[in-house]
Amino acid sequence: MEKFCWSSLFESKEDNMNVKKIVLASASPRRLELLRQIGIEPEVIVSHVEEVVTSSVPGEVVMELSRQKAEDVAKGQSAGTLVIGSDTVVAVDGKILGKPRSHEEAAEMIRSIEGRAHQVYTGVCMVLKGEDGAEDVIRNFFDATDVEVYPMTEEEILEYANSEEPMDKAGAYAVQGFFGRYIKGLKGSYANVMGLPISMVYQEMKNF
Amino acid sequence: MEKFCWSSLFESKEDNMNVKKIVLASASPRRLELLRQIGIEPEVIVSHVEEVVTSSVPGEVVMELSRQKAEDVAKGQSAGTLVIGSDTVVAVDGKILGKPRSHEEAAEMIRSIEGRAHQVYTGVCMVLKGEDGAEDVIRNFFDATDVEVYPMTEEEILEYANSEEPMDKAGAYAVQGFFGRYIKGLKGSYANVMGLPISMVYQEMKNF
Repeated sequence: MEKFCWSSLFESKEDNMNVKKIVLASASPRRLELLRQIGIEPEVIVSHVEEVVTSSVPGEVVMELSRQKAEDVAKGQSAGTLVIGSDTVVAVDGKILGKPRSHEEAAEMIRSIEGRAHQVYTGVCMVLKGEDGAEDVIRNFFDATDVEVYPMTEEEILEYANSEEPMDKAGAYAVQGFFGRYIKGLKGSYANVMGLPISMVYQEMKNF
Repeated sequence: MEKFCWSSLFESKEDNMNVKKIVLASASPRRLELLRQIGIEPEVIVSHVEEVVTSSVPGEVVMELSRQKAEDVAKGQSAGTLVIGSDTVVAVDGKILGKPRSHEEAAEMIRSIEGRAHQVYTGVCMVLKGEDGAEDVIRNFFDATDVEVYPMTEEEILEYANSEEPMDKAGAYAVQGFFGRYIKGLKGSYANVMGLPISMVYQEMKNF
């Protein structure tokens, strides 16, 4: 099904949009899984660019970081390659939570989000390399999702924070993991909370 | 992690709640996957009870059906067994959509949900078999989630309806599948849309 659906997206274009290859500029297995879910099988090339943030507004931060990653990886690519960069943060009362550096920090983050709502921001940058010296086409946007977490006991917080699941996740939790037992509900895109707003990415592709 | 987390849930109870076994009264691989996600590994026993529906209100329908399945499977179980039954429907303007019986019916269902919002109702019935002739403890409830779907072209509708993905799903789509490219967002529990509101199930277990 994948190949059919993927190629149909572009082959039906009258202007013969020439996307020859998709590259995911992220090491996140969740983002790869999400693209595969909707029938896209990208090559993975991880950017090692030094991240520069000039804003403290969550939506702007993730847009900046996703763009730096996508543009860094796009440099080495040939015409017709579509590079997708992405970055996710969690925000509580406007304060940004990244990935925890220790189990103690994970516990602190969980304490700050339990029993209330927070926001998850994912920035996306899509760079389509231009043909014959033409400019690249760039789409840079973000999606935000409200997530509500049930009240947790200190025992539940420590049990979770001391597991391995929170360690490589923005905000110290995985919505698609064990933490699902504490997710009361959300408003917006679930895929966005996992790390990539796939329906928005697909709709942007259609509008290229 | 599973065993620790699971047993800690009950062993910390002062009244020594004696849940010896969990049984999922459903053949749905999604429901099994969701329980495993939060650390619960149930035995699966599928009910073949004849379903009787006395209501046309979606929330009441799924509660009735989940209860019939759970009570049917619970009959043969010994004290200390917790049986979880569940049923999911999709509702558009109050009209209930079950599973499509053909690709044509799937296309009709997709046409009725594209470009707008609909509701997904999952009913849950949890039956804990009583000890020594004591009455069973029963929890019967439902959760509802609003789901918004992007506008789809007739080509997209037919491509999806003619695939195998919609065929065993209420409302003719899988939120966790290829259809994810058309899910604009939701309000409420994502797990509920997949077929089991796991956080609500977990919170109910804590209150048993």
